[in-house]
Formats: sequence, structure tokens, C-alpha cells
Amino acid sequence: MQFGVCYYPEHWPEARWAEDARRMRALGLSIVRIAEFAWSRIEPQEGRFAWEWLDRAVATLSAAGLKIVLGTPTAAPPAWLSRGYPDTLPVDEQGRRRNFGSRRHYCPNHPAYRRFSRRIVSLMAAHFAAHPAVVGWQIDNEFGGGGTARCYCEHCADAFRRWLQARYGTLEALNQAWGTVFWSQEYSAWEQIGPPILTGSAANPSHTLDYYRFASDSWVDYQQMQLEALGPHRRADQFATHNGMGLFFTALDYFRLAAALDFASLDNYPTAGPDRIRGELYGDETPLAVYAPDVGDPAITGFELDLARGWKDAPFWIMEQQPGHVNWGWYNPGVPPETVRLWTWQAAAAGAEAVVFFRWRAALFAQEQYHAGLLKHDASPDVGFRALERMAGERQQLERLASGPVQAQAALLFDYEDLWALQLQPHRRGFSYLRLAFTWYRAFQRLGIPVDIRPYDAELSRYRLVLAPSLHLGHAGLAARLEAYVQGGGALLAGVRSGFKTPSNLVTEQPLPGEYTGLFGVHVQAWQALPPGVALRLEGDLPLAQAEASLWAESLAAQAPGVEFPLRYASGAFEAQGALSVRPLGKGSCSYLGWHPSFGQAVELLGWLAERAGVARLAELPPGLIAQRRAGQTVLLNFSADPLSAVVSGAAVEVEPRGVRLLGED
Amino acid sequence: MQFGVCYYPEHWPEARWAEDARRMRALGLSIVRIAEFAWSRIEPQEGRFAWEWLDRAVATLSAAGLKIVLGTPTAAPPAWLSRGYPDTLPVDEQGRRRNFGSRRHYCPNHPAYRRFSRRIVSLMAAHFAAHPAVVGWQIDNEFGGGGTARCYCEHCADAFRRWLQARYGTLEALNQAWGTVFWSQEYSAWEQIGPPILTGSAANPSHTLDYYRFASDSWVDYQQMQLEALGPHRRADQFATHNGMGLFFTALDYFRLAAALDFASLDNYPTAGPDRIRGELYGDETPLAVYAPDVGDPAITGFELDLARGWKDAPFWIMEQQPGHVNWGWYNPGVPPETVRLWTWQAAAAGAEAVVFFRWRAALFAQEQYHAGLLKHDASPDVGFRALERMAGERQQLERLASGPVQAQAALLFDYEDLWALQLQPHRRGFSYLRLAFTWYRAFQRLGIPVDIRPYDAELSRYRLVLAPSLHLGHAGLAARLEAYVQGGGALLAGVRSGFKTPSNLVTEQPLPGEYTGLFGVHVQAWQALPPGVALRLEGDLPLAQAEASLWAESLAAQAPGVEFPLRYASGAFEAQGALSVRPLGKGSCSYLGWHPSFGQAVELLGWLAERAGVARLAELPPGLIAQRRAGQTVLLNFSADPLSAVVSGAAVEVEPRGVRLLGED
Amino acid sequence: MQFGVCYYPEHWPEARWAEDARRMRALGLSIVRIAEFAWSRIEPQEGRFAWEWLDRAVATLSAAGLKIVLGTPTAAPPAWLSRGYPDTLPVDEQGRRRNFGSRRHYCPNHPAYRRFSRRIVSLMAAHFAAHPAVVGWQIDNEFGGGGTARCYCEHCADAFRRWLQARYGTLEALNQAWGTVFWSQEYSAWEQIGPPILTGSAANPSHTLDYYRFASDSWVDYQQMQLEALGPHRRADQFATHNGMGLFFTALDYFRLAAALDFASLDNYPTAGPDRIRGELYGDETPLAVYAPDVGDPAITGFELDLARGWKDAPFWIMEQQPGHVNWGWYNPGVPPETVRLWTWQAAAAGAEAVVFFRWRAALFAQEQYHAGLLKHDASPDVGFRALERMAGERQQLERLASGPVQAQAALLFDYEDLWALQLQPHRRGFSYLRLAFTWYRAFQRLGIPVDIRPYDAELSRYRLVLAPSLHLGHAGLAARLEAYVQGGGALLAGVRSGFKTPSNLVTEQPLPGEYTGLFGVHVQAWQALPPGVALRLEGDLPLAQAEASLWAESLAAQAPGVEFPLRYASGAFEAQGALSVRPLGKGSCSYLGWHPSFGQAVELLGWLAERAGVARLAELPPGLIAQRRAGQTVLLNFSADPLSAVVSGAAVEVEPRGVRLLGED
Repeated sequence: MQFGVCYYPEHWPEARWAEDARRMRALGLSIVRIAEFAWSRIEPQEGRFAWEWLDRAVATLSAAGLKIVLGTPTAAPPAWLSRGYPDTLPVDEQGRRRNFGSRRHYCPNHPAYRRFSRRIVSLMAAHFAAHPAVVGWQIDNEFGGGGTARCYCEHCADAFRRWLQARYGTLEALNQAWGTVFWSQEYSAWEQIGPPILTGSAANPSHTLDYYRFASDSWVDYQQMQLEALGPHRRADQFATHNGMGLFFTALDYFRLAAALDFASLDNYPTAGPDRIRGELYGDETPLAVYAPDVGDPAITGFELDLARGWKDAPFWIMEQQPGHVNWGWYNPGVPPETVRLWTWQAAAAGAEAVVFFRWRAALFAQEQYHAGLLKHDASPDVGFRALERMAGERQQLERLASGPVQAQAALLFDYEDLWALQLQPHRRGFSYLRLAFTWYRAFQRLGIPVDIRPYDAELSRYRLVLAPSLHLGHAGLAARLEAYVQGGGALLAGVRSGFKTPSNLVTEQPLPGEYTGLFGVHVQAWQALPPGVALRLEGDLPLAQAEASLWAESLAAQAPGVEFPLRYASGAFEAQGALSVRPLGKGSCSYLGWHPSFGQAVELLGWLAERAGVARLAELPPGLIAQRRAGQTVLLNFSADPLSAVVSGAAVEVEPRGVRLLGED
Repeated sequence: MQFGVCYYPEHWPEARWAEDARRMRALGLSIVRIAEFAWSRIEPQEGRFAWEWLDRAVATLSAAGLKIVLGTPTAAPPAWLSRGYPDTLPVDEQGRRRNFGSRRHYCPNHPAYRRFSRRIVSLMAAHFAAHPAVVGWQIDNEFGGGGTARCYCEHCADAFRRWLQARYGTLEALNQAWGTVFWSQEYSAWEQIGPPILTGSAANPSHTLDYYRFASDSWVDYQQMQLEALGPHRRADQFATHNGMGLFFTALDYFRLAAALDFASLDNYPTAGPDRIRGELYGDETPLAVYAPDVGDPAITGFELDLARGWKDAPFWIMEQQPGHVNWGWYNPGVPPETVRLWTWQAAAAGAEAVVFFRWRAALFAQEQYHAGLLKHDASPDVGFRALERMAGERQQLERLASGPVQAQAALLFDYEDLWALQLQPHRRGFSYLRLAFTWYRAFQRLGIPVDIRPYDAELSRYRLVLAPSLHLGHAGLAARLEAYVQGGGALLAGVRSGFKTPSNLVTEQPLPGEYTGLFGVHVQAWQALPPGVALRLEGDLPLAQAEASLWAESLAAQAPGVEFPLRYASGAFEAQGALSVRPLGKGSCSYLGWHPSFGQAVELLGWLAERAGVARLAELPPGLIAQRRAGQTVLLNFSADPLSAVVSGAAVEVEPRGVRLLGED
Repeated sequence: MQFGVCYYPEHWPEARWAEDARRMRALGLSIVRIAEFAWSRIEPQEGRFAWEWLDRAVATLSAAGLKIVLGTPTAAPPAWLSRGYPDTLPVDEQGRRRNFGSRRHYCPNHPAYRRFSRRIVSLMAAHFAAHPAVVGWQIDNEFGGGGTARCYCEHCADAFRRWLQARYGTLEALNQAWGTVFWSQEYSAWEQIGPPILTGSAANPSHTLDYYRFASDSWVDYQQMQLEALGPHRRADQFATHNGMGLFFTALDYFRLAAALDFASLDNYPTAGPDRIRGELYGDETPLAVYAPDVGDPAITGFELDLARGWKDAPFWIMEQQPGHVNWGWYNPGVPPETVRLWTWQAAAAGAEAVVFFRWRAALFAQEQYHAGLLKHDASPDVGFRALERMAGERQQLERLASGPVQAQAALLFDYEDLWALQLQPHRRGFSYLRLAFTWYRAFQRLGIPVDIRPYDAELSRYRLVLAPSLHLGHAGLAARLEAYVQGGGALLAGVRSGFKTPSNLVTEQPLPGEYTGLFGVHVQAWQALPPGVALRLEGDLPLAQAEASLWAESLAAQAPGVEFPLRYASGAFEAQGALSVRPLGKGSCSYLGWHPSFGQAVELLGWLAERAGVARLAELPPGLIAQRRAGQTVLLNFSADPLSAVVSGAAVEVEPRGVRLLGED
């Protein structure tokens, strides 16, 4: 378990570097990330490179014993580039060319921009790869941040057409796959196809879903170009990673992006990101009141951390860790040191193997002046610094915790394409794939059941329970693999709107759930969006405290022998029809849940499923207390402002407010 | 009374057409509308026409006994057209050229687009007009839908200047009519005049009102061009119509649009449209709670149906009838078969002579995947199909109902220009001509009084009562005709802000109500917008349960002998002045209402007026139950989920939930 | 004290002018403002000037005994100019070129526009300056109105670069001052710098603050150009002024704009402006309920009036006074005559020496049809006319009141640059410099303490108490002057976030409050934004009824001897640290307030400060009653609808609803 910090030598007088480095080491930091926004200093004019200052910075930092992560500086091209090649600036979905003056102002598909990027990455690698203190590379910074994930410029239009040609081969196939016969949208020449923006009414959802895929792939491709530019120079012991963002950002398929990286990294900002996504995640349900604004929402942070681990099914780095208040939320509350400690433990328990704080000292200038550093503007210690001081005595515990893997018996399947498809056609306000997945995640956390968040192509055999919020786009191969998993003894539950679509976002012509009918042995006979205030009663062998289906409902009928319905609708159009199916299959069983559960229902349903599947709960937990398991140890984390007690193996274990409790190895 | 369905043979394998046609006939459908979005199949390349597939579709459908309505396919130009002639794409009020990829992506004033439209309509007519199964033509589809009613491109600017030249003759007259001396807006050359968009503060309301008129006229003109292109080929027994939209869409003057058509058509979607307009229609008043989300709001649907009948004062078609859930509302709730039946009866009772369901089978692709058809995606019956099956035994009743006219003794005057003028200058948030008209409509419906909704040039002598929400723009001719109506024995009530403006949207220089002073025999001495929470007490010979004027108030003083004030203000600045006037005139009487009534007040006032005017109520109705009268029969329709009773001629008549009750002919 | 009216002879038949002028005089008006929107009549074609009509208007008005204020007509260029030179039209922050068709559609930095402006102003001055009735000039009209304060066109970009060159000299200095090393924003050529719009995330706050300064300076410069064009012709006894706007408009630094004028003018619209700014001014606090919608908010109007006096520390004109309802608020309620009288007295008491009503007669056409005049559309008297009639007997009182200066013992410092800097980086939703300043203003008004609103370079020695809401950008010179003020016996209180920034909007590297540390003798050890629902308890020698800090908190520690803390935090992260400091210094004392006070707290704190500083309260006032002091008289103004009593020198003084009470000279 390593600790580090983001540092910007170019922001401070050179005379201060050595003292800064000394204080970092004294605080127990061993990693420093630098250079990811320094392009204008490295290449102050087109083709003129200035390495000396960075050489001196690397020398100073490494002399103090720090290991260095070098960021490639492509997230912020210099003025000479953006002004000299103005069409490298991206175009937004309003069709407006965006401007120089902040960051991420470039199109990843622009040939000249790629050429400039390749050159600086290649030269940087050639220059620094041999330095023994350089332990790894961060490619660019937060692809897609600030609403830049999807560019709609002419270079992207060109690249999109090539992407489509590769995917579909012929225009006939594309027209078929998109159903362009509808509203005379048929294309008779590739050049007729453009980005799906500024259409009168909504654009074709197949067109748009492919654009989302293409835009995500553009970043994967752009990253690959940088990896290749690093390639000839990069030492074998130097890692390459990229820092992804929190749950509010779902425009890139991080599973695909992480594939080519040595490990994934997450930028972890618990108090700001939720402002942007809480409304979608909770809908009309209320976040728990026990969490204070200065600690964020442990379910959101937990989801982000577990998802980051899932991107590669491996330990990951926190490449930027919130060290105090931030500047990009709604209220940006102050944060006490104990909260920073709690977040750090949460990250470690969830699989982080390094926590790099952002940033060393608060910026005196520009856009992030109001973001805390470990040091304040005047270089005196701020709360993150004090938190690290307090954790000095906990290093061994943290390292033991980080010495082994996170252990989960359950997996939550998560798919960016399903998320996008349902985002494009929610059909009912408030329906969100992310909300549905989050509802299940909260239930796992509430019950003290560790869970991995995994993509559809994950190997599932090690899990006792697999939960798929919605298998929305039907994939025959996935159906077969899920069936094999169940046959082999697994327990599977899938949610509403599964199998509704084909991979190109058409509706299946088959009875629902389409490709998954054979697996679950049920037919969805009808479905309904339920508006606010409308609910269908539920009854059956599995009594629920809140026995009403709301938001979305599907009526189920058995299509295979042995299917049972522990819950049926007891009112409305679906009265007496199945609401939850269970089908024993091989050594396992699979279930289809016909409505969108509330959080309370998800907790009850998951408890029932887990018990049947033999999935252990780490503890009985009150709201506000969460549990993780790593390296054979259970970690209890109290996010509330009161002491709370868990029941572990029958015994009460108290955890102090904002406190952490480690329960010894097995 | 005929039933039909919208069908898209181009969406389905040709092998399925015959079976689809057979099932349509078996369900009792006799009409099928086709081809209105098939341009890319009919003219796959510029100038190359492919009729064969459509010939075969027409042959298959007609062979099954179906009568065919052919849509001209101009609502969705193909990619080769939009890309080859990119300035046919419309420009929105943000000045942005909109894009290909959905529908209605064209400017109706573009010369090339008109040329392409004329050619395909003309060729289509030449090709199909002789076919005996083709009973009529639908011109284009939903002009103005999706926010495309007003284009702001250079071709429109040109056409607008020509329109202005025709209207005003000289620049001097235009400058006078618009009051351009204000803020130095005077035009010294026609080329200086453009669309009224992107101005710093609001544009000149005379300029904008004329642009609204021009934009509406552009569609009338574009439709006329198509009618003329059909002309030489169209058989005398083939109708031409256009399908208009619901109350949320008021950007076109449907009275003018309908003038050249054989009959008007309405696309009737009771659950979706209200999402867009309910807030404006009800303001701070609450819609009745007895209506469930799966039935829509019968007052809104009723207004739409009665207005559609009023477009030509004649029976009309429902060219698209909601058959289950839709995809373009906020929540898109599921709909039960009994609701579809109720809507169908409501349409018939309001004057429909055909109901064509949209659409046969739910689309597997593109923008309307989530819109129900009579069949589900997998071709199994959905709720609309089942509703039609249930109605099989009711056909004779429906036909008897449709055999005669709707009978109303009262008329509600409705004027798009007054609506636009008040939309441009509401003066007070929440003031809306549409809301005011709807408040009166609800009162008619609540009291069981059938009402026609008619334009200002309608012949009024057949009505005992005429209600004008606001005669906002003053027209001397209208004043004379209304006076003749009253002199002849009619009862007239007009509302606030009458006569305030001239036809070019200037304020009258005369004392208010300007042109209508002579008619009502009153002067509006002063007027005030009343903000929320402010009301003026009312008292007088006509006691109201809610004796307060809110929202808007005008103080009235008599200007002619015999004027009486059944209500006067009893507080505030207008204390002791008239709030409601009555003037006996010839054989009739006319009234001016000096405030914006609440719904409850509208019910009381209308009840009082109707009684004085000898207008009969069909029944005493509880909320949720409505009554219509056609062909000598009274139809009771229960939109609630409970049994409700009306009192008809002194006797209670119960109607089951979502039920229909037909009371025998006179 | 003079009364006048805005008149548009070009709007009315010439035959009516003499009668209008006669009625003006009969009503006691002596001033008439004309011509400020008449460019299209004065120069109907480029280079062709038509003076005759205006000569006749001036002759007619002056013949009736009216004195004339001539507006230069540059606020509304004619169509031939905007169409002939289309890039004189301004560009908004979305990058869109705005359109002709309302007003203020020009860029003040466009060379051709400046040339046209200079010519017409110069010719107008040459033509009219000698006329004895012309008493002064109004330059343009409401610079920046309608969202046009900041133009982003290429001409502005050029001018901005020149402005930056003048400010910073070298690119090195600019890069340093803006901290452009952050995110590689460094500029290597002046041409690379553009307006700070359409950036991906937020633009650099130093860049934007400079753009705000530049945009404000552009109007100062454009005004200066007009002053110079008037110069050679203007008679020595003719004033030049410009009419500024209310509190909702803060995009121009009116202190700088007013510097070159003979006196400042305010356009005073009490019921409309608050709609736009009330939400920001009150945040989650509730405006007092005693004020009716037809009187506006006396605290907002009072702030505007006192600020207008402060622009030049001198009497000012109301160049446009609301005469009844307006047309640009949300609800635009009707207004009774007594309210118009109350506003007039309020203006006089606050330092107005002329009140010019807008406008003589309500406009029959264009954008302001719904704005009341003294006459209605039909030329009959409206409420403002009647109010003036009622005030006929009060002229002597008003003149005596206006014969001397407003007398205030306290000053509220107000700075547009601090406002802009905090607007760009509020850090917490709801934090607003304007709200903070307004909270203090309300407290002054509530306590009956007259206050001047003054800029940072004001001479302060005449005040017993100076209150600085936030001395946000640190200025060494200001610190020195404030220290001299305190040393000389003054009492000073400054609020949160003082000294946080440098003048170029960087964060200070010094401990907080930076430049002001030496003055207040405290260090801000830490600061926190407090989100809604989070508050820190307060306790100490100065008990507060509401003993909680919310919204923003800073913890204070003494850095100098003698500093005391009458209030300390008693909970949370800052427990036991100082919340309010007092430092005796020389003959005076200075205080730093460490949190954002609520209104109630501001009243208590100000009462305590005022008592210590020997600042007198004019009266004890109930909510709804305010007091001003001018020419040795105290004026009590009752904004409520009930009689209210003040206690003055121990005796109760009743004021009737909407009434005014004048208390005799000292």
C-alpha cells in the first residue's frame, strides 16, 4: 500500500521543490505524479522542446526518495496548437466549436492532434523512460471530463463513417441494423451519415447508440496510440495507466479502456460527484440521513471503488484522492481529517493499492484555486496533511490489508452499452439503468455482502450469486454463458427490460425476454411503465414488507417446466401473473424479476437470494456502517457522526464515529 | 363509422403483408393508411422512382378488402435530398441549421424542396389515383410537429418579405403597422427585414405576430401546392385531408389550413399531449383527481375533438388514434383495453366518422419503438387489438351515432391570432389565451352543455349562446357581425383584454374595449394584472361561491343605456366599479366579463348564462363523467375508475367505470 | 427638486405636441427628456440628416416652458447601419451574432460604430447646444441593458488584447498574473488570447475577471468618446449624464462610469427589477411579508437609490421613474397613485434632485406597449398622473427636503470587482457578494441608520462607522487607507473572504486575510463553506438571538496584542476559535466577522457596532417603515398597507399606509 501526491513543479518556484519533496517524504508519501498538464512548458513553441526544467524536477523529487509517475500532457494542448490548428478544438452537441482556455479542448480523432500527441509522448518516453525513479506513466488525464467525451466535428464524422464501415461492411447492413427505412432515413452513400445531433425530434436510437460506442472507442483508440508511442521506450517495470472518473461519468466504457492498461486508476472525490448524480441514482427515494455532507455518500463512493476494481478485476490505484474540500460541487463543504482517513481506509478495503492525494498544495491560480491540497495556499498543513500524520501509525495495518485480494462471492453485472441504450430510451421519466444497478449495489452494501462489479464477458464461475440489473441488449453468446454458469451451480437474477433489444438497438421480434427466454424459462407477456402514484400489489410465498411493484412492471408466464413464482401481481392489469420467477437449472437456479425494486425490496430480495445461494454476510449492519473484506480481514467503516455497532458472528462490534474497525484475519 | 389502421409495408417482409391484411379485416378494419414516410423507398435516388413494391402493397391490401389512404411522403425527405441540398434543412430560432436523421427536416419555402415535393406528389397521384381501392390522400404528416412550425432560414426570410409586401404594399405602411419608429426600428429597404430572432431584448410583437402568421400561411401554401399537384390526377371521389395535432400544438391556424381540405383529421393521443400543455392549461388550479394516468384528461381530449370538428364545422377523421401506451409523454403509462374503447366512443360522440389506429404493429426500429401498435413487437395482440375485438358487437350502435351531426346550442369562439398575440405579451406569468379558453371549455363539459369551437368568421345564428374568451385584436367587421348576432336574439359573453389591440398588434388609441365598445356598451376604465395572492372581492346580484377576482381585472363603466352590472368589485382599486356587464340589445344580450374566471367561477357564470339563454344541459354530471350529443343520442362517458351516475331528465343513470352509456334517440 | 417626463415626439402626430406640452406644464413638470431612440428619424439614411422635425419638437416643448434633456440616440442604431455593417451587431457568450430588431444591438468597440456614433453626437451637439431650452445631455441609454454589457466579437477581442497590453505590458506579466501555467494555458503570442467563452470547463477566473473589467471599461471609454464629441459644442451650463440601472444589473462599474459625468442618473423601477434579483439577494431567507407586490421591496429600492447617490457621492437624477405598472417583471401588478407618491418621496429623501417619469403616454406600439405612462394609451390620466396631481401641494416640502444633502454617519463599502470575483467563484451555491452587501444594507435600513454606499477609494474620514461586506481582492493601498481611517477614530468591520485574492484574482500566498492581516490583527486559520442544514454554534460576550453561524465560516486567531473575540465558535471544527474579532487601534477599532451573517444577526451586530461607534438611529422602526435624513429633516416612509408607528426621540409617530411623514428640521 503506497501513498502519494500530485505535484506541479511548474506552479512553484524551483527553489521550493526540494523543501516540498522533503516534506512529502516526511509525511510518508512515496509516489509523486507530475507533468500531466505541462505541455506548454515542455513544448513552449511548436517543435521546440524544453526538458531541462522537468529534468531538474525529476532529479529533485527522486533525490528525496520519491517514485515518479509521469503524466503525458495531452489533456491540455498549448495555445500555439489550439490557435494554430483551430479545428483540433472539439465541437459540442449544439454544433458549437469550443474554445481554448481551460482543458480537454481537443478532438481525439483529429489527425494533426494525434500527430502532435504521438510526438510529445514519444519524446517524453525517450527522454525519461530510463530514469530509475520513473515507475510508470499516466496516459492523458480523465478522458471525457467536463462534457468532452463526445466530439461532433467533421474529423469525428469521418472517423465515425470508417468505424461504421468496419462494423457493418455495407450500407445495406447498416440500414438494416438501424432500421433506417423508418421515416425515410435510409442512406444511399456513406458520406450522408453524420453525427446524430441537431435533428428535429430525437435521432434514431440505433444511430446514437453506435455514436456513443464510436466515441468511447475513439478514446480507447487514442489511448492505444499513446501506449504505442510509449512502447519502444518504456521500461518493462514501468506501468501505464489512466485515471477514470466517478459514477457521474458513464460516457466511456471503462472496461474496454482499461483492457490495454497495466492497472486501472480512479479519481476519487466523494463529496462533489454525488451532487451531479444523486438525483438520478435515488429518483424519488431519499438518501439516508445519517451521512453528513462532509463525508459524501458511502454507497456512491463504494460503487465507484468496487467498479474501479472491476474494470480489470484487479487492484487499482486511486490516482487522485480528495484531500479536503473540493471546488466543483454545489456546496463544497469543509472536510475534517477523520473523513479523509475514512475514505483512505475505504479505498484500501475496496482494493486500492495506492492512494495518491490531489494535490500537494492548493493552487494559487486558475480554475482550481478553491480545491484543497494537503497544504493550504500559504503552505501550512491542511486537513489531508493532518489525516496522513494521524495514519502514520496505521501503515502496517493498511499494508496487511492491501496484501491480498478483495473477496466477493457475488457479482453485479454492469454494462455501459445497456446503460446507454436505456439512457436513450428510458420510456418513463426516472427509469435509469444506473439507478437500477445502484439500487442493487446499495442492497449489497446494506447487507454486508461484498460484491464485484463485472462486465458481461467476465468469468463468473467463482461467484455463488450473479445479479444482472437488466440484460437489456440481447446477446446469444451471453445467454449461453449465463446458462453454463447456472448449470454449474450458480444463482442468477436478472431484472426488467432484459432481452428487449438487439445489439444494434432494435427491438427483438421474439417474445420477451428474447434471447434470454430459453435461460429463464419465462415469457414476459406484457409490460407497463407505472407513473408516480401507481403501483401493483404483490403477494406470494416470499412476503415483502413493501408489497407493491412500482415504476415498471412486467407480467411473467412459465415457458419451461419447473418454473415457480414466489411473487405474483395481486392487482391491476397483471393480476395473478408472475412477478418473480425461479427456475432450477442444472446445479443452480435463475430468476427473473418483473419489476423495478425499491431499495427496501432490493434488500429483502437480495437477502433471500443470498441465503439460498449460500452467500455469506460479513456482518449485520445498521445504516451508516459498511463492511468490506480484503486479504482475509473484515473492515468496518462508520460513515455516520454517531458510534454504531455491527453484529459479527453473533457479537456486537462498536465502531466510533467516522471510525474504522479491522477484524482480525481468519 | 369506419375503423382503420396505419400500416408500413416497407417495415415488414413482403411475405407478411397478406397475413397482416387478413387479420386487419378479421378485426373489422376497413381503412389502411400507408406510404406517408416512404419517400426513400419510392425515390431511392434523385429522379429514380420505384413504384413496384408499393404497387404490390396496394394490391395485397386491396385484395383483402381494405380501402387505402395514401400519404404523400414529404414529411421525411430522403438523405440524398437533405445532403444534396443542405439548405433545405430548416433553421431554428437559435439560428441553427437542423440536421437530417429524424423527420420534418425541411423548409416549406425552399424552392428546390417545393419542386421535389411537387414532383413526387404529382407522380404518386398519376400512378395511384386510378386504383379503385385508393379512397383518399393525406397531405404530408403533422405539419409543424416536433417544433418545426417556424423556420428561420434565408428562404423563409425571402418569402416573409414577399408576404409582407403583399400585406402592406409599401414600407411606409409596414413601418406604421409595426410602429417601427420605436427604438429606431424603421426599415428603409425591404432587404433589411429578417425573421424576428436573436434580438437583444424581445423582438417587436407586431413583427413577431406577422412572422407567426407568415409561418402558418407557409404551411397553408405548401399544402395548397400539393393539392394542386394531386389535382389533375385525383379522382372526384378521393378525398384530401391533413392530420393535425392536439392542443399542445397551436403554431398553425388549423381553420385556415383546413379550408382547402375535404375534411379535417386529428391525431388523437390522450395520455401524452397533456404532459406538454397541462401546466399552461391549469396554471395554479389542480386537474381533477378522478382521472387516472392511463386515461388522460377528458377535458383536454374533449377540447381537441370538439376543436377538430370546429376546424371545418363538420365531421372529421381520427387519422391516428392512440392504441395503448405511447412513447413521447413523460411516463407513458400502460393503457387497458377499456380505455381504448372509451376513447373511441368519445371520438365518435364528438363527430369522428373514422378512427384509424396508429399503428398496426409496434415498430422494431428507430424512434418509435416504444409506441404501442394494435399488435406487439412479436405480432401478438396488444390492448388496442383486444379493445377492437370487444367493440365488435358495438358497431351498429357506433354507426347509428355517427349517422348524424353533433348538436350544440352554444359556441366557444377560438382564434389562433389572438392566442399568438397574448402568447407574445402575456404581461403576467400564467396568463394564457389557451388557458382562458380551456377554462370555459371545462365549464361547458362540466355542465353537460355541448359546444362547438368556432373561428371568428363562423356563422353564429344557429347558436343560442356564444362565448368569446377574449376578442383581443379588434376587428370592426367582427364587431358588426357579433352585434347582428345579438340583435338577432343571441347571447354573447366576451372576456378580458378584448379590443385591446389592432390587427397588426398595436394598442388601440380608443378607450377600451376599442372596436367592441359600441357592442358591449361599456368602457374598461382601468385594468390590472393581479399577482398570486392578490384578489379583488366581488359582490352583486349574481352571487358566486368564490367571490373574488384574481389573475387579471378590468373595471367597467356603462357607456350605453340599459347596461347593468350583476357583479361589481368590492375591494381594491376598482371598488364599486363593474366586474360583469349585461346589455340587452335587440332580441339578445351581450356581456363583458372583467376578470379571468377560475374554473369554479366559469361553471357558475356559464350556468347562469345558459339558463338565461335557454341552452339545455344534457345531464347533471359528477366530476369524471362527460356527456356528448350526436344524431339525437346522448352519450355518457365515465373516465373515472368508479361507477358514476348522471341525472338525465330527472332520473339517475349509472355508468360503469371507464364505461359508455348511450341514451336512446329522441 | 424638479419633475419631468420622458417624451417621444416621433411617436405621436405633430399636431398633438403642443397639447401634450401644455398638459405637462399644467401638471407641474419642468423637464422633458427626448430623442434618445430617434436615430432612424435623425439620420434616416447613412449620412442624410433630418433635423427639422426635432427642431420643431424642441421649439414646441420649449415654447411651453419645458427644459429639455437631449439623449444621444446611439442605444438603437437604425436598420441601414446594422444591415449595412452587420459586424457592428454584438456577439453573445454563446458565440452567436445577435440581430437587429430591438435595441442595444451594437458593439461599443467596433471602429465603424464608434465613427457613426461620434458623428451623430457631434452633429446633434452642434445643432442643438445653442438652444437655450436644452439644459443637458443624456449619453446613450442604459449601457449594458438586456444582457448586452459584454460583447464577445472579434472587435472586442482586438480591443481586449490592447487593453491587456496596456495593463500588463508583456506576455510574461500577463501569464504570471493569470497563472496560465495551470493547464498549459500559457500564451506565447498576443493573438492567441480571446474572450473567455465556450471553454470546455470554466474559463480561467483571472482571464474572466479581466474581461469583465475590460467590458466595463469599454463602456466608460465609449461614453468618453461621446463626451468628447459633445465637448466642442456643449454649453458650460449643460450637464452630461447617463442613466444607470437597478441592483439586478452589476455588469458595469458605475463608480468608474459616473466619474466623467456631471451627475449620475438612475432609472428607478421598484416592482420589476426585484423579480430578477430577489432570489439572489435573499437566498433562503424570506422577504418581509408586509410589503405588497404593488410597492416593491423598499430595501431593494433603497439600496439602489443610496447606491446611485454613492456613484458620485452627490445628488443624482431619477431619469426614469416608474409611473404605474411596468411590462418587464413577472407579474407586473397594477400600482395605485399613493405608491407612486411614496416612491417619489423615497427618491427625494435619498438624494434625488429631479424625478423624470417614464413615460408621458403609454406606447401604442412595439416592445413597451404594456408599460404605463402618466397617460393611458387613450390619453386619459393614469395613476402616475393622478399621483403628481396629488403632490401639487407638497412641492415646497419636497424642495426644502432637496435643498440639502443626505446625511449619513455610516458607509457601506461596495466594489464591483469584488462582486465579479465572487460571482465567478462563489465556491458555495448561494454565496453572493451582492447578497452579503444587501444583508447589511437591510440591517442599516431596519435600524433607521442612514448609510452611504461608497467605493474603496472614497474619503472615509467623515464616517463614524464603515462596513465592508468583504474586502475580497487584497489591495495594499486600501489596507493603508483603512488603517489610517481607524487610527483616526473610525470603526471598521469587514466580512468573510477578505484579502483572499490578489488584484489579478490569484489567491494570496500569505496567511489570510492577506494584505489585511496587519490591519485586523488576526489570522484566518481555516475556512469552510457550510452547506444547507449545517451550522456552527456561537457563544461569547455578545449574545445573539440566533447563535449559529451558517453559509460560510472562518476561524480567527489573534495576531496582534489587544485583539478580543466577542464571539467564538462553540461547535464543529472551529470550536473555541474566534468568530468575531475586535481590535482597538489608534483612536478607533476594527473588527473582522468570520461568518456570513443572517439578516437577524446583521441587525444585532450592526446595532452593537453602531452603539459603540456613536452612530445615531433616526428612529425605532417596525418592519415596513423606513427612515431617511436629508437637509436636516427626517422622512418616515410607510411601505405597508397598515398604519405604522415609529419611535423618534422617545415619542411615537404614526404614519398612514403608503404614507410619508416629515419630521421638522433640527
